[in-house]
Amino acid sequence: MKLAVVGTGLIGASVGLAARERLGAEVVGCDLDPAAALDAGAIDRATSLDEAVDAADACFVCVPVGALVETVEAALKAAPAQCVVTDVGSVKTPVVAATSDERFVGGHPLAGAEAGGAAAARADMFEGATWFLTPTGATSGIQLEKLHGLLGGLGARPTVIEADAHDRAMAVVSHLPHVLANVLVGLAASGLPVMGPSFRDATRVAGANPPLWAEIYAANATALDDALAQAIDGLSAMRERLAAGESLEEWQSRAALARDALRAAGAGGDLAELHVVVPNRPGVIADIALTLAREGINIADMSLAPSVDMATGSLDLSVPAGSETRARELLAELGLAS
Amino acid sequence: MKLAVVGTGLIGASVGLAARERLGAEVVGCDLDPAAALDAGAIDRATSLDEAVDAADACFVCVPVGALVETVEAALKAAPAQCVVTDVGSVKTPVVAATSDERFVGGHPLAGAEAGGAAAARADMFEGATWFLTPTGATSGIQLEKLHGLLGGLGARPTVIEADAHDRAMAVVSHLPHVLANVLVGLAASGLPVMGPSFRDATRVAGANPPLWAEIYAANATALDDALAQAIDGLSAMRERLAAGESLEEWQSRAALARDALRAAGAGGDLAELHVVVPNRPGVIADIALTLAREGINIADMSLAPSVDMATGSLDLSVPAGSETRARELLAELGLAS
Repeated sequence: MKLAVVGTGLIGASVGLAARERLGAEVVGCDLDPAAALDAGAIDRATSLDEAVDAADACFVCVPVGALVETVEAALKAAPAQCVVTDVGSVKTPVVAATSDERFVGGHPLAGAEAGGAAAARADMFEGATWFLTPTGATSGIQLEKLHGLLGGLGARPTVIEADAHDRAMAVVSHLPHVLANVLVGLAASGLPVMGPSFRDATRVAGANPPLWAEIYAANATALDDALAQAIDGLSAMRERLAAGESLEEWQSRAALARDALRAAGAGGDLAELHVVVPNRPGVIADIALTLAREGINIADMSLAPSVDMATGSLDLSVPAGSETRARELLAELGLAS
Repeated sequence: MKLAVVGTGLIGASVGLAARERLGAEVVGCDLDPAAALDAGAIDRATSLDEAVDAADACFVCVPVGALVETVEAALKAAPAQCVVTDVGSVKTPVVAATSDERFVGGHPLAGAEAGGAAAARADMFEGATWFLTPTGATSGIQLEKLHGLLGGLGARPTVIEADAHDRAMAVVSHLPHVLANVLVGLAASGLPVMGPSFRDATRVAGANPPLWAEIYAANATALDDALAQAIDGLSAMRERLAAGESLEEWQSRAALARDALRAAGAGGDLAELHVVVPNRPGVIADIALTLAREGINIADMSLAPSVDMATGSLDLSVPAGSETRARELLAELGLAS
């Protein structure tokens, strides 16, 4: 297997290391300055984009959010017909909207800091980490399944989701915490130079990588604005509770329940298997994955075997135990027997 | 030395352990259920409040914020004339306002979780930790200096501050992060069950100890409301920046600077010594400490030696190197030669 990695910073170099060590892949890097990735053993060699993607099975575009659209476009232009192209940007709508190429699947691993460089790369960076995939109706099922399997091979837990839902979720669980961290250090700057443990935790990411984060906020401006409005509503409601002299114990208890529920939902569990015969047309696998994702059913594993005449395929899906009945109903609604 | 510890939860038991192990003190506990503290070796024995404070040199009131005022009052009533009484509550204005006894000094160590019980107590809990002291004009200098030294003996860094300034600072660096954590988990509860590292850090304290935190929010309602209003202003300003399409790189960079400045200010450094002759009247030591604190000059160590006729005392102060000139000016403004 040959992989192209375009942009060999922390994430790109970790993809390279993991693919070389865990999958025995040949990894070719493309970067203005690939020295650190070569030193780290993350890539076999560094070349131009054209040479990197030549005969590659997959291409990972690991450049900053602001350069994603143009770099993905260039990679798709240079890549051969069988090569799946993906990216690792933390905002998905703009890059997904910019292409209708069936070889492209947007991606976003929840791992690693946004900066740090190839020297900090690790082969186990993605072990157990959620890796979002945002296929569209244009995405080839074969390419999606290939990438899904490849990410599993890197140790990640691929999770299919719509780009818009991804960006709204990231606005809450990543971009908003960064904004809050900045606001907190701003408020504290005029006070005592003292940090409690909750403040230290909440402000760890304050001021992280300014050029990169400016791009992320801007790329996800709509969803972030909505999250900010909701946060303001939450803080305003708290002011009203304080002013009314309400007991806040129940409010605090509800937060404890929400936190526990979030943690429990993040944990893994037993899996059930489903077998589906699917017509071999673009978008059908993405359709299945997105339909299940909308109801919170994650595909832990998938494997697609095309029929001899390539007219249909046999798709094996692993979903969390207990969700297989609902999954079968959803597949039936799509006209698919399982 | 004999210490009374009233309330032998995590903080009270850690005070007991540290005082026994580091200072060789006799520690007598008072608690409805002292078994865990006895098991942990945090107290020599458990008795009634009256017996605990009998002939004690210091009394630490380590009960939840909601029970502070009445417990401090009871402790002062039972304690002998030479006994300094302090508390460890995270909100200081109400308890400080409730007493004008010269033996009382409000306190608040920045260490430990707010719950956890005596079983989690550690003798090194306060090693290097800031321990706020909030003396008033009524506080005896001898008692303040005794407590200051005792806390240093526990490994802490005692830091004198006005109760009001303390509560405003805590509203920003502790109570607001807790509210934000609750708001964040509330927003995320309706979305994907996924947590990025910044979200995980920012929500670690979500829903912490509901009865205790309800008391803390209520006790510090005024300062917390002000911090909430400032946070809302900060988030609203961010919405305006996003709507205007402003580059956010400079904003992100300013947060990085603020964070670095906060961290640098928290670090220690070289010390300078000052010697002051002070009249032996109530409040003068607290006056000196608070005057220096208002300009950000922390007293790392202080030692008070009364003159033979008890009319004056000789006070030795250690302040951060570089601040001794300004400290001398401030002492001169108080009519004190150094």
